[in-house]
Amino acid sequence: MPAESAPVLAVDIGGTKLAAGVVDADGRVLTSGRVPTPGGEDAEVLWDALRGLIEKVRAEAVAAGSPAPYGIGVGSGGPMRWPEGVISPLNIPAWHEFPLRHRLRELARGAPVRVHNDAVALALGEHRWGAGRGHANMLGMVASTGVGGGLVLGGRVVDGASGNAGHIGHVVVDPTGPPCACGGFGCLEAIASGPRTVARARAAGWVGADAVALTADARAGHPVAVAALARAGEALGIGIASAVALCDVSIVVLGGGLAQAGDLLFDPLRVAYTRYARLAFSRDVPVVPAALGPNAGLIGAATLLLGGESCWSAED
Amino acid sequence: MPAESAPVLAVDIGGTKLAAGVVDADGRVLTSGRVPTPGGEDAEVLWDALRGLIEKVRAEAVAAGSPAPYGIGVGSGGPMRWPEGVISPLNIPAWHEFPLRHRLRELARGAPVRVHNDAVALALGEHRWGAGRGHANMLGMVASTGVGGGLVLGGRVVDGASGNAGHIGHVVVDPTGPPCACGGFGCLEAIASGPRTVARARAAGWVGADAVALTADARAGHPVAVAALARAGEALGIGIASAVALCDVSIVVLGGGLAQAGDLLFDPLRVAYTRYARLAFSRDVPVVPAALGPNAGLIGAATLLLGGESCWSAED
Repeated sequence: MPAESAPVLAVDIGGTKLAAGVVDADGRVLTSGRVPTPGGEDAEVLWDALRGLIEKVRAEAVAAGSPAPYGIGVGSGGPMRWPEGVISPLNIPAWHEFPLRHRLRELARGAPVRVHNDAVALALGEHRWGAGRGHANMLGMVASTGVGGGLVLGGRVVDGASGNAGHIGHVVVDPTGPPCACGGFGCLEAIASGPRTVARARAAGWVGADAVALTADARAGHPVAVAALARAGEALGIGIASAVALCDVSIVVLGGGLAQAGDLLFDPLRVAYTRYARLAFSRDVPVVPAALGPNAGLIGAATLLLGGESCWSAED
Repeated sequence: MPAESAPVLAVDIGGTKLAAGVVDADGRVLTSGRVPTPGGEDAEVLWDALRGLIEKVRAEAVAAGSPAPYGIGVGSGGPMRWPEGVISPLNIPAWHEFPLRHRLRELARGAPVRVHNDAVALALGEHRWGAGRGHANMLGMVASTGVGGGLVLGGRVVDGASGNAGHIGHVVVDPTGPPCACGGFGCLEAIASGPRTVARARAAGWVGADAVALTADARAGHPVAVAALARAGEALGIGIASAVALCDVSIVVLGGGLAQAGDLLFDPLRVAYTRYARLAFSRDVPVVPAALGPNAGLIGAATLLLGGESCWSAED
């Protein structure tokens, strides 16, 4: 077992890209790389791409003078069996019940490998190194293709009974609202995800490609674009008010692509939050942008090993 | 320090009654007593009544052959400063910023005294001895004059940043819903508390005194009474769906006066829960009645000392 200061390998599994990096014990990314997520149905093609990427960044880090990284932390889209790390990401059809953790343990020659929901990893990273630093009780969130999150309570990550704690995207913010991909109705994600926000603008006559274009048009004052983001912000404010009432966190950190809209999202979010969060302990809880930037996914994945907050029931 | 098997004193502070009991290490109530909560504005009159009650049940337990109880666990209505146990219960005007924990520590000659939200105490009791036994992740709830709750996650009670975790009564279940006593809108408590359920029936023409009468009439088939309870159940189902998505508990336990309505409340609750909780990890989570009965408040308060799950940051 190497010293506690050894760097770790971090892996971020997404539907559009695979990323890997070597992250030191201070949360700094020493080396990193990414490749497009291979399409198709072949699980082994995908695995070969990931393994090649990991070996490349590992070799680069060592060549640059880093100690050999010890252990692998992985953030991945779900669902997954947890803590086994058998993953079936919705947006990666080639991996259905793929034993990612087992494969990575072979690759790591028995060193610790921890796999968690990518939103949980992001929340842990923001808690340890980012905008949630110093708060023993925080909610970290991502609003992008979906809306996800992770909870740190009493200084420790909340796993939940099945490793799925933090799914704030499926808090109901409008019981008469639109159907959600999960099968429910009026979930936060069904209103405030990037694609749903774009779809709402398009249905009202806006013409544009994606959330980036929507945000640009909203900045230029396009009223339909402004209203679509405002509705997303309102839904986020309601969902966050419910989460803070239930979990009594002292800060909420919001990242992800849609959060790049800045005040166009955060202003209506805070108006709604102030309307619905009226308890003495909830009303002044700040909702702040994430701080870790483009490497947040890797830093979060690394924190699964670096943090020490988690209770792991698995064999290592 | 006495053996771990020593009984503890349990105290349940409410707006209508004060209760105290001696509870052994197996969660059995050895002796108990209760007095009406003194009215008026004098904090010391209330304190004298509580102290007398505690000394009486303590003496009775010892006279009956029990070892002397060690330490005091208290469940009280909030708000309170926590873990200091400085309480200002909404329905006890005589105690505003009353240093209950400090007073009880003097009475207990320095033995541990722990004060928590009464709904948190109830949840802990159900977790340790009741319907939530064996679940490391559970939500315990009470629907009566208000709607409250407590969370156990990863086998430990969740305190939150200010000791207020578990306030499911202020999860928003209908953003266009009625004003809540907290100042918000459409909170679960604003729809599903006993008084709000009774008021809804009365507004629709029902004539009756309280939730007990409402439940009796609903059992007899009175359609307005049935509908009023069904709306409460629906709101509970939506709020619970949100809480399970966020916290990934494996069971939800619901007690309190309104829960005595049984299927008249639980059936519409489960219909709504099934409609809104669609994730693989949430859809089959059982929502069950509390099991501890009329002594639940005392057993829960005792569990604050007996349980060992809590992280206490205070001096003892």
